Amino acid sequence: MSDNPAISSAASTRLRSVDWVDDAVELVDQTRLPQEHRTLRITDVPTLVDAIKRLAVRGAPSIGVAGGFGVVLAARAHPPDRDPEGFSSALAALRTARPTAVNLARSVDRVAARAGEGLEALLEEAEAVRDEEIAACWSMGSYGADLLAELCGERPLVTMTVCNTGGLAAVERGTALGVIETLFERDLLAEALAVETRPLLQGGRLTAWELQQMGAPHRLIVDAAGPFLLARGGADVVLIGADRIARNGDTANKIGSFSLALAARHAGVPFVVVAPESTIDLSTATGADIEIEDRGPEEVVSVQGYPIAPPGTPALNPAFDVTPVELITALVTDRRVIRFDRGETIETVPLGELRSPLGTP
Amino acid sequence: MSDNPAISSAASTRLRSVDWVDDAVELVDQTRLPQEHRTLRITDVPTLVDAIKRLAVRGAPSIGVAGGFGVVLAARAHPPDRDPEGFSSALAALRTARPTAVNLARSVDRVAARAGEGLEALLEEAEAVRDEEIAACWSMGSYGADLLAELCGERPLVTMTVCNTGGLAAVERGTALGVIETLFERDLLAEALAVETRPLLQGGRLTAWELQQMGAPHRLIVDAAGPFLLARGGADVVLIGADRIARNGDTANKIGSFSLALAARHAGVPFVVVAPESTIDLSTATGADIEIEDRGPEEVVSVQGYPIAPPGTPALNPAFDVTPVELITALVTDRRVIRFDRGETIETVPLGELRSPLGTP
Repeated sequence: MSDNPAISSAASTRLRSVDWVDDAVELVDQTRLPQEHRTLRITDVPTLVDAIKRLAVRGAPSIGVAGGFGVVLAARAHPPDRDPEGFSSALAALRTARPTAVNLARSVDRVAARAGEGLEALLEEAEAVRDEEIAACWSMGSYGADLLAELCGERPLVTMTVCNTGGLAAVERGTALGVIETLFERDLLAEALAVETRPLLQGGRLTAWELQQMGAPHRLIVDAAGPFLLARGGADVVLIGADRIARNGDTANKIGSFSLALAARHAGVPFVVVAPESTIDLSTATGADIEIEDRGPEEVVSVQGYPIAPPGTPALNPAFDVTPVELITALVTDRRVIRFDRGETIETVPLGELRSPLGTP
Repeated sequence: MSDNPAISSAASTRLRSVDWVDDAVELVDQTRLPQEHRTLRITDVPTLVDAIKRLAVRGAPSIGVAGGFGVVLAARAHPPDRDPEGFSSALAALRTARPTAVNLARSVDRVAARAGEGLEALLEEAEAVRDEEIAACWSMGSYGADLLAELCGERPLVTMTVCNTGGLAAVERGTALGVIETLFERDLLAEALAVETRPLLQGGRLTAWELQQMGAPHRLIVDAAGPFLLARGGADVVLIGADRIARNGDTANKIGSFSLALAARHAGVPFVVVAPESTIDLSTATGADIEIEDRGPEEVVSVQGYPIAPPGTPALNPAFDVTPVELITALVTDRRVIRFDRGETIETVPLGELRSPLGTP
């Protein structure tokens, strides 16, 4: 379906969390991982909405791409010219499947804007959304791996990372994990250490699984082991993704990122944030303006539903933390590298080229 | 059975992980916690050996006390004067129930040395072992709470602690958790934050349970949340126990201690180690001489037997870490406070009095 042969051929061998295959949406069912790798084939909007709601697909880019393809399913069941009401109620269901996922509504609207041009145009637009996400990941991988050669030298590196920032969250390759995959492809990955990332264990359930799929050398560690291993020289670099980056570079990401940043600084090891340009929020001046969401006690007092504390135990559950820019060596995006350690800032470094073998979509 | 009325009256209201009650050993079955609080009554050596082996009782002091009472059970079943072979094979079984627990063999030998004086003498000695452990905990609590008043002022404090260092591990009150209990009794505990302590979750399973039993205000957090909460001013002090303290003050303790120490320093919050004098190992010069045990992948890739990573995932599992003395504000023992932050050392601060309402056993 893609005009770009690099993407079509990649599709057959690479993990994609979501794609359009033989006239249907295909999703890796992330609720089954890591016990079972099951691909869902989805041909109607209600099933797709349900899959988004129950987190079978997760990660802002993956959800956005799924929503874009959902518009194709909607138009097929409810041709906009003949059943405009059915079409628009299907769109509404898609847009609100995950109310906080900004990417979802944005993709649905972008694809649906071409409804007047027929089904092929909708599919073309949905594939463009997908290809842009994938190209951004390739580009971050290239910028990131080049930066690490600069920071650490051209030698096999032990990396440490938190949460899941791979293809499962970002369609293919991912952000921080995309850089690790690029190192692996360049024969510059000695080992990837994944911290398990309580409470939801995305490191153990998803990142370990992606590294296994990739065939990359890796080991899992508990969250609290990360800082100590860094202090003992156990890793050459820490790579994380980002939920939101403030104008000054302070970075909100999964809880545990700050602790690794502090230990990386103590150990004299680079700490690198990898995230697309869209993650930078210029309207937020610093990390102090970022409110920390508390997700409630349930995730803490149990593990995958199994209780690990006495009934009624109260818990604090900050879902993410903020790493101050002083502890961040550099920010890698799909368009540039910002060396905070050299005094560069988001506002002073100009955008560069998109570096993707897939070309600029 | 005790001559000390303070201990007898305390026994009725306080949690003790192990005690001698109505001619039997009573143990809190720690394998059932936190789901069920069950007390085992044990009247014979084979059942006690089994309880020690399957970790129904854990923590060096608790195991030692259980072993001491075990000698009484052994002598009752095999009177040393009439059945010396039966007695000595029962002692051998007790001493080897946990080969690495130095306290166990030491207590068994100490109590058994009085075998010639009859059953009452054995019980007296076993109770003395128990009472000394308890007195040491009261003393650490008093020294520790006084130190905190000095460091933080006489005001209600939010404490943060890792692993389980309470009565379950140390018969009654405990080390770091004993200080927290003392603060609570003095109306100086605003809240106790317990980090869950993966992989074995002693914070969630045991510390949260002890705090609940105590009626103290508390909340559970995931390990990675501790450092960030410290950075945001979320706690006034970090208190930890110790597995081993080197001559220079470097402290080996449960994995996660180092990460909290680093964050406490970053936040300008005191980091205090609480452990009996017996934990100080003068034959170890510094933390660099302490070998870090790797307990194998199983505990990391699963939680209480439930898999949380793909089958075959390799893992690194350092069971403890070493916090350098530079990050430790003070060491509190049962006999003194050593202010590392003021340049004091283990070798320069003399032993002081045992501060226990139970008197010096």
